[in-house]
Amino acid sequence: MPDAAKSASLAERLVAGDKRALARAITLIESDDPAGWELVREVYPRTGKARIVGFTGPPGVGKSTLIGALTAELRKAERQVAVLSIDPSSPFTRGALLGDRIRLSEHFLDPGVFIRSMASRGALGGLSEAALQVALAMDAAGKDDVLIETVGVGQAEIDIVDHADTIVLALMPGSGDSIQALKAGVMEIPDVIVVNKADHPMTDTMVCEVRGVLALSHQPGEWQVPILRTEAARGEGVEELAVKIDEHRVHIEAEGTLEQRRARNLRNEVLGIATSRTRRRMEATAAADPETAALLERVVRRELDPASAASELMERQSGE
Amino acid sequence: MPDAAKSASLAERLVAGDKRALARAITLIESDDPAGWELVREVYPRTGKARIVGFTGPPGVGKSTLIGALTAELRKAERQVAVLSIDPSSPFTRGALLGDRIRLSEHFLDPGVFIRSMASRGALGGLSEAALQVALAMDAAGKDDVLIETVGVGQAEIDIVDHADTIVLALMPGSGDSIQALKAGVMEIPDVIVVNKADHPMTDTMVCEVRGVLALSHQPGEWQVPILRTEAARGEGVEELAVKIDEHRVHIEAEGTLEQRRARNLRNEVLGIATSRTRRRMEATAAADPETAALLERVVRRELDPASAASELMERQSGE
Repeated sequence: MPDAAKSASLAERLVAGDKRALARAITLIESDDPAGWELVREVYPRTGKARIVGFTGPPGVGKSTLIGALTAELRKAERQVAVLSIDPSSPFTRGALLGDRIRLSEHFLDPGVFIRSMASRGALGGLSEAALQVALAMDAAGKDDVLIETVGVGQAEIDIVDHADTIVLALMPGSGDSIQALKAGVMEIPDVIVVNKADHPMTDTMVCEVRGVLALSHQPGEWQVPILRTEAARGEGVEELAVKIDEHRVHIEAEGTLEQRRARNLRNEVLGIATSRTRRRMEATAAADPETAALLERVVRRELDPASAASELMERQSGE
Repeated sequence: MPDAAKSASLAERLVAGDKRALARAITLIESDDPAGWELVREVYPRTGKARIVGFTGPPGVGKSTLIGALTAELRKAERQVAVLSIDPSSPFTRGALLGDRIRLSEHFLDPGVFIRSMASRGALGGLSEAALQVALAMDAAGKDDVLIETVGVGQAEIDIVDHADTIVLALMPGSGDSIQALKAGVMEIPDVIVVNKADHPMTDTMVCEVRGVLALSHQPGEWQVPILRTEAARGEGVEELAVKIDEHRVHIEAEGTLEQRRARNLRNEVLGIATSRTRRRMEATAAADPETAALLERVVRRELDPASAASELMERQSGE
């Protein structure tokens, strides 16, 4: 089995912290290569040590800049850092978003920092599953911090951030929709809130609004969500962000909620992988099997309702 | 079979346009009662006539008010209207959001208007599937227009709106995050854009920004997405909205894309129902079966990786 032999040695190099092995591992995972899944299977017992921090927030608030500045801060403490950026893959804006990521490029030559982007569309289904496999690989490679950045739009991105130990929501003056979503209770309350681009004249208003929303949902004895002001492009406020992430970590460890969160997230991850594989298998059946195609055609002609067709599809699937 | 007999007569009353039969049907669908699925199965051949219009946009832009005003406009033309509101179900904000829906209440006594809300969380999984079953019931009941409102946050809501024939995005001055999301290509371009609360001084800036985003993505010969200004609370601009929804309908019928959209959406609906049922079945197994619980426990103890556990779970499921 040449594949198994190759991935065994890749696993050894990965666990030893070899940067190229990690890059190779991610490529395998991203392309849904069985060797990628096999690799994660091998190194999984070595995971669970890294601190996983998820960053979310609307496009344009400067999450990449913030993560770049935070990375510089974490490097001062000689921590090994991995950054996973979940990129929207719309062709006509890709350039603009990568330009926004320039701030991360100052770390490209630092061997203690590993940076990788993943496209959020066009991936072979199950993006959040793939992203979490990548996070596991980074963890196994001995990174102290795994920073995951998402655009904060769509369920896939939310699922990814949900798997973090600490969730940071980045806003900026003008993030009206996000405040409304927090107010309406349709966006979960994060662990740390950062108002970036804090030299904007509307920052005080923004902080005040956010504080009002948090006051509504805060329970006595619970973690008090801090609202930080940063000017990430100049590194301002980023030291405090690092401190608050530490404090949150200490809090959830003391409380025992870190273990609970991780257990719940891992269970969801298992169900998520199984669900997305089942969906892909059904899509493949629908595309290849003439009887399934005929079944779907009957739905389009309004002869058979979608739910009955779904039942038939499930029977066909389990009968295979 | 008393259940089948009951649902048969319910189906007859539904197709005859009985308002209480429709209300009952929706309750059955919402509570995941098999009689609800059975009912949709029976009336499905009578669907496909209604015009399905989806409304999305951040919380607070006044979608309910806009839909209320549009309903008044459609009633002038004596069209039968059904409104399905997908509500976030956060307990501490429910009141506020319902208050926002006051504008719809003027239609409560009009027999030509049917209004119903569904909670977006706490539903028994598969919200988007349930919502679409409800839309089918409204269609079968002879409604000319089915207006679906979602908060536009989260994949479930996006899935629902994707099933509409025409998608209206409502914004207001200050919807900075939504504009950024459109710019970044992480939010799909809708069919009609409405800038509500248009007496705000920043409206011109907003319209200009939206126009800039649309110019980037517009292809010659394609539908030109109109940007309308409304002041829904006073009914201003709503007549034009009704006209543009009509024009979009005519356009996609002439182009043949209405049939294509519907065929694609129905196929996705079948796969969506099958996927969410599979997921629920697996969750039930995980909760009830001690061996599955033990499997998940091994993942939490880092003995077995999530993907391998997912494979075992899928085998267990199909072996049942």
